[in-house]
Formats: sequence, structure tokens, C-alpha cells
Amino acid sequence: MDNYEKVTELARRRGFLWPAFELYGGAAGFYDYGPLGAPLKRRIEDIWRQFFVIKEGFAEIEAPTIGVEGIFQASGHLSGFSDPLTSCKECKEIYRADHLIKHIIEVPDALSNQEIYSVIKENEIGCPECGGELSEVYEFNLMFKTMIGPGNKMAGYLRPETAQGMFINFPRLLRYFRDRLPFAAVQIGKSYRNEISPRQGVIRLREFTQAEAEIFIDPRDKTHPRFDEVKDVRMKFYSQAAQERGEPEEMTFGEAVERGVVAHQMLAYYVARTYQFLLAVGVSPERMRFRQHQSDEMAHYAADCWDAEVLLDRLGWIEIVGIADRTDYDLKAHMDISKVNLKVFVPFEKPVKRQKLVVKPDMKALGPRFKGQAKAVAEALKSLNPEELEGERILIDLGGEKIEIDSSLVSYETVEEEVRGEEIVPHVIEPSFGIDRITYSVLDHAYYEDTVDGEARSVLRLSPAVAPIEVAVLPLMDRDELVRPARKIVDDLRVLGFRVDYDTSGSIGRRYRRNDEIGTPYDVTVDYETVEQGTVTIRDRDSMNQVRVKVEELCEKLEQLRSGALKFEDAGEPVSSAKEQESPAA
Amino acid sequence: MDNYEKVTELARRRGFLWPAFELYGGAAGFYDYGPLGAPLKRRIEDIWRQFFVIKEGFAEIEAPTIGVEGIFQASGHLSGFSDPLTSCKECKEIYRADHLIKHIIEVPDALSNQEIYSVIKENEIGCPECGGELSEVYEFNLMFKTMIGPGNKMAGYLRPETAQGMFINFPRLLRYFRDRLPFAAVQIGKSYRNEISPRQGVIRLREFTQAEAEIFIDPRDKTHPRFDEVKDVRMKFYSQAAQERGEPEEMTFGEAVERGVVAHQMLAYYVARTYQFLLAVGVSPERMRFRQHQSDEMAHYAADCWDAEVLLDRLGWIEIVGIADRTDYDLKAHMDISKVNLKVFVPFEKPVKRQKLVVKPDMKALGPRFKGQAKAVAEALKSLNPEELEGERILIDLGGEKIEIDSSLVSYETVEEEVRGEEIVPHVIEPSFGIDRITYSVLDHAYYEDTVDGEARSVLRLSPAVAPIEVAVLPLMDRDELVRPARKIVDDLRVLGFRVDYDTSGSIGRRYRRNDEIGTPYDVTVDYETVEQGTVTIRDRDSMNQVRVKVEELCEKLEQLRSGALKFEDAGEPVSSAKEQESPAA
Repeated sequence: MDNYEKVTELARRRGFLWPAFELYGGAAGFYDYGPLGAPLKRRIEDIWRQFFVIKEGFAEIEAPTIGVEGIFQASGHLSGFSDPLTSCKECKEIYRADHLIKHIIEVPDALSNQEIYSVIKENEIGCPECGGELSEVYEFNLMFKTMIGPGNKMAGYLRPETAQGMFINFPRLLRYFRDRLPFAAVQIGKSYRNEISPRQGVIRLREFTQAEAEIFIDPRDKTHPRFDEVKDVRMKFYSQAAQERGEPEEMTFGEAVERGVVAHQMLAYYVARTYQFLLAVGVSPERMRFRQHQSDEMAHYAADCWDAEVLLDRLGWIEIVGIADRTDYDLKAHMDISKVNLKVFVPFEKPVKRQKLVVKPDMKALGPRFKGQAKAVAEALKSLNPEELEGERILIDLGGEKIEIDSSLVSYETVEEEVRGEEIVPHVIEPSFGIDRITYSVLDHAYYEDTVDGEARSVLRLSPAVAPIEVAVLPLMDRDELVRPARKIVDDLRVLGFRVDYDTSGSIGRRYRRNDEIGTPYDVTVDYETVEQGTVTIRDRDSMNQVRVKVEELCEKLEQLRSGALKFEDAGEPVSSAKEQESPAA
Repeated sequence: MDNYEKVTELARRRGFLWPAFELYGGAAGFYDYGPLGAPLKRRIEDIWRQFFVIKEGFAEIEAPTIGVEGIFQASGHLSGFSDPLTSCKECKEIYRADHLIKHIIEVPDALSNQEIYSVIKENEIGCPECGGELSEVYEFNLMFKTMIGPGNKMAGYLRPETAQGMFINFPRLLRYFRDRLPFAAVQIGKSYRNEISPRQGVIRLREFTQAEAEIFIDPRDKTHPRFDEVKDVRMKFYSQAAQERGEPEEMTFGEAVERGVVAHQMLAYYVARTYQFLLAVGVSPERMRFRQHQSDEMAHYAADCWDAEVLLDRLGWIEIVGIADRTDYDLKAHMDISKVNLKVFVPFEKPVKRQKLVVKPDMKALGPRFKGQAKAVAEALKSLNPEELEGERILIDLGGEKIEIDSSLVSYETVEEEVRGEEIVPHVIEPSFGIDRITYSVLDHAYYEDTVDGEARSVLRLSPAVAPIEVAVLPLMDRDELVRPARKIVDDLRVLGFRVDYDTSGSIGRRYRRNDEIGTPYDVTVDYETVEQGTVTIRDRDSMNQVRVKVEELCEKLEQLRSGALKFEDAGEPVSSAKEQESPAA
């Protein structure tokens, strides 16, 4: 068994996550988060919120997961978000056409459907299942489609990303932020991609959770006011140049911007915050890298793009976050389709004076001469520049038709006007997080094995910040005199917001082992000294050391341990016999 | 303007919530939660989680929002979750058929589609739009349907409730809870109903958020171990009997169970917790009631059902929570369709001895005589009772065919066996919360107007526990010497997890008013005394009183105010001139 198998088996058996719809035969690409997985995922989301909503002051919004057609016309998902398919004419099985020619064409993405089909034909590729003839290659859109309301009148699509919710709410967000750049909005929520044949557990899901931020900035200023806070953070940058050398390069963020490794401060700042967030939830720095997109994998409009990647057993390097400078692409696309002005008026520091040409056509003369066209002629005249207005005959272009106007019919003058600012289309920095992948990475990186008393011990070394159970309360035996104080401790801890488990079944050693396996940082054991002297033991998951504390101080000590204000060694009297209890037979 | 209009206008203008897809013409039944609405909703969900996940120890899970066909076959949504429609043959407009005959038939729900159509015909009801002839009445299923994967092979449905996720995960949940009843699982998440023509803002949405708990209990014991904690809570019960009298009746929960007003402790306990939760998020006790379902509105399998209803301006009494004893209906339905055993083995306190009849057919004799039927004959013999085995000729029934067997071919004896327990199908208590409706109710009940200096003031009297902005930090003027300390306070508060807004635009009075309107409990004003003496003022939203505190004590005081440990009057030196700043012109 490799680690991948061990982690997924543990995750399924202990209630973290498992394939959905088991009762009804399942469906690839859908997973359930169980009683331990859901709180783990939730806590990762909460830490994300702490980083990006609370500390950065970004606005969290919640838009529907179903969207209407116009949105995805503008975003390009309706036309471009698809995979090339081919079907077997015999057995009707369906395949990714580009995958079938991967052994012939290294990068089939560049080929058209017709070209892929030609390669299939030329190489006499048949159905992998039955050898039958394959159909022509066709596009399959990866959005789940449905119909809104009765009568098949209005199509709806399950969103393939949360980002569009921020873009289409841009006018309201701008107003909320009192018409000033920069500002940002985020969403944490479900997105959907109707993958052809999803595999790899929660790494490729048809329904998944994203946390995305859209940071709207003035394109003329890509510095960040708090860049100083991260400029000395050191990290391994796997830049385009470093990828050519095959080796990431460690440096500070300050250096990375100075040397042009990262395009600008604004992007670098959020790469740094992403790095800090991933460390905070428990992604291992040794198995994480930030890789810059190669020019040919970057979207044509993007100025720079970095992926956070993690190394996972069996799966290799997997992208878990993407951070891109998307320039003005998204807002311009929505302006085009919606015909709504999404520009922002940015006032100058102080108003400037500008020379402005004012053209005054003589409508009394133009009217009778051009009749219905007179207004268009006047507009054409107004759009001319001073040079074109010189001379006796003025030439205008009226939808292809050239017309000459006598200069006596037009007067013009140059006036000075005060300009208070200008309209700009903001640029967008987008950090986009795959929460399911991050959750799985945290499990994979936390998984650890050691040997205790000659027996293998599996441990999830989860950070207390994300552990689904924070404290397990364990009466040494299932007897009333121990159960009563134990129950009281459970209730007290729950009032304080602790996630507590209570367990009486099996030997104390077995119960420690069960809690190690799910990453519970602290076990509280209620024994006969609790009854006699009012003390309990706290056991530390990683060291397996125990300390003895007074019951009335327990809650406070656990709160301090949770917040990091207290070190475990200082929490109470060390228990010397602790290790003896570690045999599951104890 | 009535309050409904005022609240929805405020909600839209200030960034709580608004109809979705404005940029693309909108679609009825979809709403966006904005920068203030999303945190308000999130905090309500978090308090729900505090009540039901942390304090009750229920397991939170997260199942996909898309489900496969079998689930909704078992739940009945595939066949029964629909509305009767009719379309105009001329203009093609579609209508709820039962709504068109409401002025003729008071309760059209009882009619079949054919009967509704007959009423339409007999009364010559035409299209309300164009007067055209209406089509026959047909059913429209309210689930959004989509297709999973390519090739239209597998249908998927957006879940109409979160509940099914708990039911179909019953085997894994049972294992997680170490095979013992009672236990419970919850989900907070999106559900979908493809309403025909949704109205009433967030009250009737096509995409909405539910928080549901499924509490699996032993049907033979419907007491609750912690009922004592709620038995003295007083509430108005609008029972079936009270509804006949037209007047809710106030009593304690203990009395309600004793008098049989609520069916049993188990249901009453969760009604009480629901009541406490609704009070905690800010639903007004004066505009809330718990109404028992009438026998004819209750599902046929339900043992008892109570709705929490709130009184909303313009909309009247609206259901926001339902709490039902669903008996064993759901698990039995899933057993039927999935063929998986969902019974729970419940051990007896101690094993019991039972007499058991063991029938031993003489297979050596039966085999040659009955050949292929011999096994069926033996099974039939084994199922007989002692009386039927008496006599010389034993009569069995083999699928309708009567067969006589000589008693010499069968021996039987009675043995004593030890039985350790029995298999039962758990009953389910289901509290189901409509989070969008609760969020809107909180806004409606918090909305308040008073007059200050002859000017109307709008206030959202939100509880600090749910207010989206907890503290507004306001430099008296937008000058560097005030901005710098103000910014520092913002950062310090954010590190502590406060949701903080910073605002410099407009007069201080206007900024107070803006924050009153969105329910910010506390405004911190940075003025020249901050620079000179290191103090700031804290202003209380509801009383408009101000106190002056030292900057270095500010964070701690606000934390104490937030937790309720400190009263506002005791937070600092009262500021006597506070009211003078209240004019928006100040």
C-alpha cells in the first residue's frame, strides 16, 4: 500500500471523505465529506476567510450557482469550455479524442477537431473497448445545463467557476466601495464541471468548492501598499527561467519583484499571502512550490500567472491555487455582451486644463441640403480633427460614402476645459483556490507513521487550527463515577466552542490510537485521580507525552494550548507512566 | 412606502441582497447576497452550527448538490414533487392550473389534474393574458434536471432538500457513531426548486440555503436526556386546538409535553432549541409563533409537525422552520429502492432466552420425491408453526399448490436460544431551517425608525452577534494625523477577527447615520483628542451615547462589549456633547 492508498482508505473508513451515492451505485466525480471531513474543510475555509476577508478587508459575497446564458457568453465558457470527444460507432462508448492520440501527438491541445480526427483515421485508431470504428470528433461543453422554469424557454448553467459572480456584480460592488479603486470581492462556494471521466478522488471532481478573489485595481499602479509586510518572506520560485534549469530558486519576495521574476508587487503580494495561508492550514513547505506559467500555457490576455503546486503521493505535482493578473479581459468581455459601462471614473489629484475643439455645423444650411442625413453629417463633422477642418472643402465619410462640404457651413473653435479625471477599465488580480484539493493535500501531508511498542501507529499530524476534533474526552472505564465528570467536561468544552468527541469504547490505548489516526491534538483522560484529587491528564498526540492538570483549570489550559499561548510541556505536571498506556492492549 | 419596501430597498442599496443577474436582465427566483448580506447570512449559519453541531454534538457533513435518480425515486421527489400546469394554446404562456381555479375551489390541492381541467372547462376559464384556450393540465417536476457526463446516459437532479444526503449516508454515519442510537447529522447548503413563477424576494427562491438535521432515534424511546434544560422555557404554542380557538396558548415546554400538546420530549426539545436559536439571531419573539400542522396538512407518515412562523410586513405569517417526527418513512423508502439493510442492531440490556422451533425436514426422503421442488418444500415446512406440524399429514402451500406431506418425513423440536438484541428501523426527527427566510426575517424585525434633530433615522437593530460590520472606525477628518492612528486601529481589530469598516467620506454625522442603517453596533471616532491624549470615542448605535476610552484599551473593551461581559455605560467616560454630532450636517 502506498501513502495514497493509506490516506484514502483512512479517509473513507474514519469519516473524512468517500465517493458519493454508494447506496445507489455511485457516480464518478462526486464525493461526500463526512463527520470529520466536513469540519476539516470548513476550518480551511474559515482560515482562508481570516486571511482574505478579515485581514485584507475583501468583501465576501454569495451569488447563485446557477447562471443565465449571457454570463457564460461573455466569459467564453459557452463557446470555449469544452473537450473534444469521439464515440465508438459499435459499442457507443465515448472517449476524449485528444487522449486517444497522446502517444502520437505530444501536445494535442493545439489541434482542431478535424485534425485530431485525421490523426485517428491515419493511424487507424479504433475503440479501445471493442475495436469498433470511431466517430468524427465533436465538442462537448463541460458546463452542466438545465432549464429554468417550465416550457424550456430559459437555459441555466451550473457555474464552472465562482469568479463570474464578482464580475457581473461589479457595478454594485463599486458602489459599495464608494466608487474607489482598489477593492476586492470573494466567494467561497460550489462550482461544477461535467468532466468526461473523472478520476483521482477529490482531485478531479464534477462538483467542487472554490475560494476565489477578484481584486480590481487601477492598471497604472501595480504596487501594493502593504508589500513591505511580505518583502522579506523567503520562498522557492519555480519561474519560467528556473523551469528551464529544472530547479526552483529560493529568494525573498522583495528580490523576486526587483529582479522581475514576478511581474509586479500587486501579484507578488498575493502569491506571498497564498504561501502563508497554505502553511497555516498545514501544507508542507517541502512538498509545495510556486510555478510560473509558461508563455504558451498562459491565457493570451494574462500578464503573469503563478500556480501553487503540491507534491502528492502517486499523483505527483498537482495545482491547488492559481494567481493571475487577468488585466482588463473579464470586465471588457462583460461590457461587450451586456452593453453596460463597467468603467471607473478616477479623479485626478487636481483637475487639469485641456484644449478642446468645438465644431459647430450650420444646421440651418445642412438641414435642407441633407434632410434625413443631416444629423449624421453633423456628427461626422464633429468627429473631425482641426487639420481635416482646414481648407475650403471638407471631406467626410458617411458609412463609406464620401461627401464634400463647403467650409462656410462649418465653424470651429478651440476652448479650454477643465477635466476632473478619466474613465478606466480596472485590471483584475485573481487568486483562485481549489478547496477540495487543498483539503486532500492537508491530509496527505499530515499522514505519518511511527512504531510504538513494536506496533505501527498511524497519525494525522494535523495542525490544531484545522483538526476536526480538537479534544477527545476519555473516561478510563465506562463507569458512572468516571462518566459523570467526563460528560461535564464535554459540556463545558462545547460551550466554549471546542469540537469535542467523547468515547468510552475499547481500551484506553486503543482510544488514543483512534484519535491519533484522525488527528485529534489532545486527549483528556478521566481516571480515579479525577474522582479522588480532581485532576485529569492531557495527552499530546505527536509526542504521546501526558501532563496532569486540575479539572477546574482544564478549559483554560486547552484554550491556551489551542491559541498557542501555552506550550504543552508547561501545561501541567508531567505523567511519567504515560508511555505504558500506549499499548492498545492497555 | 411600507416596511417591506423600505427593508428591501435598504437591502439592495446598501449591499445586503438584490435580484441576481442584473447585468443580463435577471431571472426570477435568484438572489445575490452582497458584501453585507453574505456575512449576515454566514453568521446566522455559524450560530446555527454553534447550537446544533457544537452543543448538540451532531455531525456536520457535506454531500453533493447534484444527486442521481435512485435517491429521488426513494424520496418520492421524482414522482410527487410537481405542480399542475396549463399552457395557453394561443400565446404559449404557462400557468399554475390550480391557481387559476382558486376563486372557484377553495382547496384545489385535493383535485386530480383531470378534475382541475374539468373545472377550467366548465367555468370557461381562458388565458389570463390573451383569453386564449388553455391546454390540458399536466405535471411539471420542480427538480432542476441535468445530465452527468457525455452521451445523455445518466440523469442528475439538483437536490430539492439537503436531507437526502444524510439518509443515503446512513450506513457510514451509523459506523461513525459506533453503531449506537441516537445520533444525528446535519447539512448547511444549497437546495433547488424550479418554481413556476417565484415572487416575494428571498422568501420563494429557486436556489436557496437550508440547514437541516436528521436525528436518528430508537422509536421505543422518545424522551430526551437533556429535556430538563428546556422544560421551564415558556413559549406561545399555536397547537391544532389553539388554532381552532384562534389564539396561541403560552406554556412551558414541560407542560406542553405533559398535556400532549407536543407529541413527545424528543420533538419538544428541538422545538425549544429552535426557539432559542431564532431568538439568538434576532427574530422578534412578538412576531414569531410555533404552529402545529393540521392533520390534513401533515404528511401521512408524520407523527407530529411544528412550524416556526414569523410575521413579516406585507407578507404575513411565513414559515421559516419545520420540525417533524418523520417516523421510519425515509429509511424504509431507501431500503425498498436500494435493497440495502438500513436497520440498526440494538442490543438488549442483557441477552434474553427465547424458545425457538427448529423444523428438520428429512431431505433424503423429500429429495427423490419432490426433486427440483424439494428445497421449496423444505422451506415451506420450516415456516410452519407447531400446531400445523401436528397430525399425521402436514399440509403445505407451494405457491398456491397444496401438498400433503407425511409427518414421518419431518421432525421438529423446541430449543432455547439466547437473543442479544434486535434489529430496528430508527425514527427520524427532522428540524429543517430556511436560512434565506430567516436572514430576511432578521432584517425585517431589526428595521426601526426614529427621529433625531427632526430628521428621520433608519436603524437596523441587529444583534452584535449577526451584524455584518461590528465596528466602524471613523477619523473625524480625512487628515494624515487622524488617518494614521485610525488605520492602526483598523489593523489591530482585524487581527482580532473583528469585521471592521473604515470610512472617511462625508460629515461625521452622515457616517454615523450610514452605519446605523446597516446595523453597525459600535462606531469608533478618531479625533484630535486621539492625537493629544491618546483617547477615542465609542458610540452605541441604539442609544447614540458615546464613551471615551484610551486607545490602548480599545480592543479589549470592544471584545468585552462583543461578548456581553461589559455594559456600554461602563465602557468609559461618557461624552456629554455626543448628541450634538448626531446631525448629519455636523
